[in-house]
Amino acid sequence: MPIRDLAIGFDADDTLWHNENIFEHVHVRYRTLLSRFHDADTVDRTLFATEMRNLERYGYGVKGFTLSAIETAIELSAGQISADEIRQILQLGQDMLAHPVELLDGVADVIGPLASAHRLLLITKGDLRDQERKLSKSGLSVHFSHIEIVSEKDPTTYERILRRHGVAPQRFLMVGNSLKSDILPVLALGGSAAYVPYAITWGAEKVDTLPKAEGRFFQLASVRDVPALAQILATS
Amino acid sequence: MPIRDLAIGFDADDTLWHNENIFEHVHVRYRTLLSRFHDADTVDRTLFATEMRNLERYGYGVKGFTLSAIETAIELSAGQISADEIRQILQLGQDMLAHPVELLDGVADVIGPLASAHRLLLITKGDLRDQERKLSKSGLSVHFSHIEIVSEKDPTTYERILRRHGVAPQRFLMVGNSLKSDILPVLALGGSAAYVPYAITWGAEKVDTLPKAEGRFFQLASVRDVPALAQILATS
Repeated sequence: MPIRDLAIGFDADDTLWHNENIFEHVHVRYRTLLSRFHDADTVDRTLFATEMRNLERYGYGVKGFTLSAIETAIELSAGQISADEIRQILQLGQDMLAHPVELLDGVADVIGPLASAHRLLLITKGDLRDQERKLSKSGLSVHFSHIEIVSEKDPTTYERILRRHGVAPQRFLMVGNSLKSDILPVLALGGSAAYVPYAITWGAEKVDTLPKAEGRFFQLASVRDVPALAQILATS
Repeated sequence: MPIRDLAIGFDADDTLWHNENIFEHVHVRYRTLLSRFHDADTVDRTLFATEMRNLERYGYGVKGFTLSAIETAIELSAGQISADEIRQILQLGQDMLAHPVELLDGVADVIGPLASAHRLLLITKGDLRDQERKLSKSGLSVHFSHIEIVSEKDPTTYERILRRHGVAPQRFLMVGNSLKSDILPVLALGGSAAYVPYAITWGAEKVDTLPKAEGRFFQLASVRDVPALAQILATS
């Protein structure tokens, strides 16, 4: 069977490199910082509510998270939090931005060979500079023909990206850990999607049920399974 | 003379719409907030130093500015600033993000006709979501064939954008208010540039001397002069 052109899109955070575990670790430090005011549950719940309220305003990423964390700390302490404790929250944010990039298992092995066989696109949301920095630290840029850092991953965004690069949705496979951002919008356009769950999923990305799209939706245990899937799709 | 293809890039902040005046206004409120600790000059100088120290980390835009303003307030008050005052700094940032977009004089008149005659690109740096929101509020998106929100405006960035859209630098005119970000990198690539100064220039964008590039560098008093310049370049 002839191999037909297949373009593969990769999400970045928690698909190519660890991210949510860094946030988890920061949450632990944040709860400790506020423990004299409230229990961990209340801290988590209030911070998440602040993040959701500010999402339209701040978008995704570390800077918006840090601003929301400061706002929440002031609210939960009824203004009793000290300047030094707020400085520690600023530091949490800066530590996240300076964190080394740790590739997920298998990524270093499969991305190079995949790039030799298919056109790879990186499609990620978050802070522009932070995502660029992580990509640069990852050493993976060379394998991607296009880098798209977007403010939201919905069908309109994917449609625009695919049109820009002349990719038919039927010849596009998106790989990612978020059903909401990586999988559902691509399936809605008629593309294929490989869902590779990460150990932790951020509340705002949670979706209750798996999508049904026969022959176009695939759940994989590891990014190591992507090359075999890509070969099947490329020859089908 | 035949009209040859000419693509025109526009900067956004302080070229299409007012921006630096919003920051100026916020600086006034910020100085007042810190006036019990330090004089205006020290506040301005320290805030600018914090912004420059954090630029690589935070990039450009309102969120990074707000984080730097909080950090500076803690530093200048030697930790004496209250949580309520920090809440007011958060509010300054949120007010900036919610600020209405006010087009510069002439923009509403010239962009439409320019878009009928030439391919227009919007090339801006800053927070991804904030720039998209401003563009949407401006009502100008429809006139631009491509929107590029970037983390830095240097020759490499412009080269990548021009290559992506198949524009030869010799057939490209960039219009903007920053010599550093809009003019010098484009001249360096062999393109043309129209410098339309804004009333206020942010410290980080200041350049001491005007560039020399005969027949390729133009200083204009208003965006209203762009159509005539574009016509000359398109027929030359």
